[in-house]
Amino acid sequence: MTAIKWHVRAGAYYDSVVLMQLQRGLLELNGVLDAGVVMATPANRDLLAANNLLPESITANPDDLLIVVKADDDAAAANAIGQVDELLARRKSSHSQSFLEFRPRSLSAAVKQLPQANWVLVSVPGRYAAGVAREALELGKHVFLYSDNVSLEDEIALKKTAREKGLLVMGPDCGTAIINGVGLGFANRVRRGAIGVVGASGTGTQAVTAHIHHLGGGISHAIGTGGRDLKSEVGAVTAHQALEALARDDETKVIVLISKPPAPDVAAQLISAAQSTGKPAVIYFIGYPPPARKIGNLRFAISLSEAAEIAVRELEDLRIEGSSILQSPNSRYVRGLFSGGTLAYEMMVGLQASLSPLFSNSPITNSQNLEDPLHSKAHTIIDLGDEFFMVGRLHPMIDNDLRIRRMRQEAADPETGMILFDVVLGEGAHLDPAGELTPVIKELREKRSGELEFVAVVIGTEDDPQNLQSQISQLEEAGVKVFRTAAEAVEYVSLKFNTNKKNGFTPVDLEQLKQPLAGINVGLESFYESLISQGAQAVHVEWKPPAGGNEKMAALLAKMKSKKEN
Amino acid sequence: MTAIKWHVRAGAYYDSVVLMQLQRGLLELNGVLDAGVVMATPANRDLLAANNLLPESITANPDDLLIVVKADDDAAAANAIGQVDELLARRKSSHSQSFLEFRPRSLSAAVKQLPQANWVLVSVPGRYAAGVAREALELGKHVFLYSDNVSLEDEIALKKTAREKGLLVMGPDCGTAIINGVGLGFANRVRRGAIGVVGASGTGTQAVTAHIHHLGGGISHAIGTGGRDLKSEVGAVTAHQALEALARDDETKVIVLISKPPAPDVAAQLISAAQSTGKPAVIYFIGYPPPARKIGNLRFAISLSEAAEIAVRELEDLRIEGSSILQSPNSRYVRGLFSGGTLAYEMMVGLQASLSPLFSNSPITNSQNLEDPLHSKAHTIIDLGDEFFMVGRLHPMIDNDLRIRRMRQEAADPETGMILFDVVLGEGAHLDPAGELTPVIKELREKRSGELEFVAVVIGTEDDPQNLQSQISQLEEAGVKVFRTAAEAVEYVSLKFNTNKKNGFTPVDLEQLKQPLAGINVGLESFYESLISQGAQAVHVEWKPPAGGNEKMAALLAKMKSKKEN
Repeated sequence: MTAIKWHVRAGAYYDSVVLMQLQRGLLELNGVLDAGVVMATPANRDLLAANNLLPESITANPDDLLIVVKADDDAAAANAIGQVDELLARRKSSHSQSFLEFRPRSLSAAVKQLPQANWVLVSVPGRYAAGVAREALELGKHVFLYSDNVSLEDEIALKKTAREKGLLVMGPDCGTAIINGVGLGFANRVRRGAIGVVGASGTGTQAVTAHIHHLGGGISHAIGTGGRDLKSEVGAVTAHQALEALARDDETKVIVLISKPPAPDVAAQLISAAQSTGKPAVIYFIGYPPPARKIGNLRFAISLSEAAEIAVRELEDLRIEGSSILQSPNSRYVRGLFSGGTLAYEMMVGLQASLSPLFSNSPITNSQNLEDPLHSKAHTIIDLGDEFFMVGRLHPMIDNDLRIRRMRQEAADPETGMILFDVVLGEGAHLDPAGELTPVIKELREKRSGELEFVAVVIGTEDDPQNLQSQISQLEEAGVKVFRTAAEAVEYVSLKFNTNKKNGFTPVDLEQLKQPLAGINVGLESFYESLISQGAQAVHVEWKPPAGGNEKMAALLAKMKSKKEN
Repeated sequence: MTAIKWHVRAGAYYDSVVLMQLQRGLLELNGVLDAGVVMATPANRDLLAANNLLPESITANPDDLLIVVKADDDAAAANAIGQVDELLARRKSSHSQSFLEFRPRSLSAAVKQLPQANWVLVSVPGRYAAGVAREALELGKHVFLYSDNVSLEDEIALKKTAREKGLLVMGPDCGTAIINGVGLGFANRVRRGAIGVVGASGTGTQAVTAHIHHLGGGISHAIGTGGRDLKSEVGAVTAHQALEALARDDETKVIVLISKPPAPDVAAQLISAAQSTGKPAVIYFIGYPPPARKIGNLRFAISLSEAAEIAVRELEDLRIEGSSILQSPNSRYVRGLFSGGTLAYEMMVGLQASLSPLFSNSPITNSQNLEDPLHSKAHTIIDLGDEFFMVGRLHPMIDNDLRIRRMRQEAADPETGMILFDVVLGEGAHLDPAGELTPVIKELREKRSGELEFVAVVIGTEDDPQNLQSQISQLEEAGVKVFRTAAEAVEYVSLKFNTNKKNGFTPVDLEQLKQPLAGINVGLESFYESLISQGAQAVHVEWKPPAGGNEKMAALLAKMKSKKEN
């Protein structure tokens, strides 16, 4: 008959390595069948239950340590629980034997020991992490913030401080970085090279850098940002700093930017910033429909491995064509007036990455919904063939009246900088749409004296009844920029409306970034060991939570809380 | 001083061409500055107001005809309104002069006139369209249903009837088709060729077929479905019929499938059906992240023009590799257990197109959310590094305990057919993950005696501390199928879980489809003219709405409703 015994240790702090080793130690004891050593959060209790290690209701708080042993019999289980303290102590003594005596107990002491340290790695539990990171910034160090469960407010405050000081905060919840050839946190060993990575995703950065290496390429720096960096509230501070630094870095020839889908406004700003680096840049927003294969110096990938492949393959080939166009960005808005619903929708897919805010009566996301289809705002794409417009009315491919009226309306709005439209030829369609549209276009262009641009996508073949070439010629003579595919128009419009403004932040000091990496590690010891094994200088801080620093106080607190034992 | 006059004609039916021509006629009259002729729906009233043609509140119902004239003065405006009847009559007489005398007034009469007709084109107002389409099906004809504003219930009922009879209902709201070289509705003139198109989007089909023509390719058939066909409620009846027909059609060598994003279950079924055609197929779900570049015989495009380019370029090249794999589809479920959050997410992006239903604790859409991360259901991808699992616990890249326990749990579920996982090597990670995982994998594979497959994505480089090659070898020796990129794993898994079942519908008669197209047109006359101009046989029905057919009744109704004139 198997037996289960447990032990609750109230409010005690142990790092996760210690807990794992305690669990493994218990499993090695005679007669023990299974063991669980966890902080008693609801999720962890559920996990214990799923492993048949939670036989009945145990009273414990989420910050209590819960130790459960399942053994062959009562005696074996009790024996195991009885050895918890010894197992914990054994772990400690193995420490002190090796190098505990050399270890500072505070960040400031560590800085005195290794003054040339330019990075602080933080992997303490989330509730303590922001404090450690703040101290690191105050000491003038870049921060690699592995810890999760850091509040959004703390992240915003930390990054505000960092950008003022020209320092990077990679994270919170940043799993991976490679700085100056040295991996921080989880990182693959890859050769150095000309590809710089900005990664809001840890294993994403690992998969891309490892595949670049596999394909024969190499990495200059891989800068992590943490996944929340690309939320609107944070505004991609770290990603912008990283792009700007890699743009200045002579060793970086190609940039790769990886992230889960950012907030729309953040995406548009990042794409503009990536354009403004003037370097070939490969962008992969995971799970986001790519706006195009290419927009100027940007390439868009659809998988991690493809991002790596494009970066390596095109390292030499990528043309940079954005610069001349970027000299005169259009600061007004696009108004798209489409007769083809799918063309309007594809234009939304393509432009939503670059133009913000963007509205439509045929939106892709709810936030793009244009409440009043009769009045555009900001960037707007209208599907004039939508049912809303269609009751008792001919389709706009047959009757141009509705579109001509709307062109006049948009042109009268001084905020309109470009009118984008389609001309769909073929059977069933109007026999001379250009003939009806161009007189109005000429008139409106004159009225706005060159401030208003017209761009058309013409769909048709040379066999269509309208005479394709004549339709195109008429449009071009009226000053319309004509494309034959929506994809080409997406690229043209995206480049026109680059909105990148100089960021107001203090640039990251590239010379400091290129110094041999020296790090101070606060938290998971394995990260310290990894730095040493890579030949970097490093110091590990023998960190305890603030209260844990005061032994008497800790003991008092422990007594005051009830200590339950089964 | 300009003047505005208007006229409300209650409950009168005119087709949209007549209304457009009345408006144009009014605009040509002396002293008239602008005119609007619309059904008095709220949208159309708003449009009039936006054009300063709605000076004050006019009482009119949505099915009333509203005629507004703006002129130089009262006299000119009143004169214009006074000529409305004459302008309407002029339109009618131009009809009767040409060929009105030959025109049948009902569908059944038209069928007697052109018994070989295999298609009926319906473009009457939405409220009448389902009735006409139903009659066409009863007469054994395929239906091209251009009309919008047809109810979902009617669409479902029509398509149910059609699939039983082996007939196609393209639409409602189907703008475009090319059958046997003849364009229906809006269609570009393109050469005939080996590429078949299934299009849930009208201008999408136009853009793709025109671009294929531009690139030197040609179209066998382009079958429209209407945008709502790919909703769950409709179940893509027409798209499935079309794929199945194009699979049997010897002239079709490559298939292109275009749609706005379908419902997830519909997408998975369509992708399976496209695989099962055994022909190279290019899929473009507009605005949907492509799951991969290729999955067996499928290619995924990211723009309309790219869909055309892939179809043409790869007409000869596309390899068909799915067939051998498809012989033993796995009817159980995938359970993905990932340590890398981004790898889990990319796997979701890749698999959501093929596997349904699919759940995750790291979902892309709300409907994929796995409420209880501790228990998988159907196809499930778990991110074991999610915060939920992480309180006081080492990351699963460092500690394999959580994943091993979960592997056991999934293997114990007879519904699990595949366990998919990642092994992420590098700095900071466990030094021998394969060494810990493979004994368990071997044990579980034996327990399930070959019914359970293990598939791994290994991320790492040969310079990583773990020895990449040894990790891969250990996994392969334990019977694990190993991939180096998530993209390759996506393709493998997607092919394994093809769920295509034989559809229970009556196949479309290909011989009938290949007969010279002969059509009966009910609605927009221009569609009839287009058929004739393409050399097809056609009959136009001089259609009137049911009540409009009885002149006396119509007059009576008109009198009974109030007739207001200003």
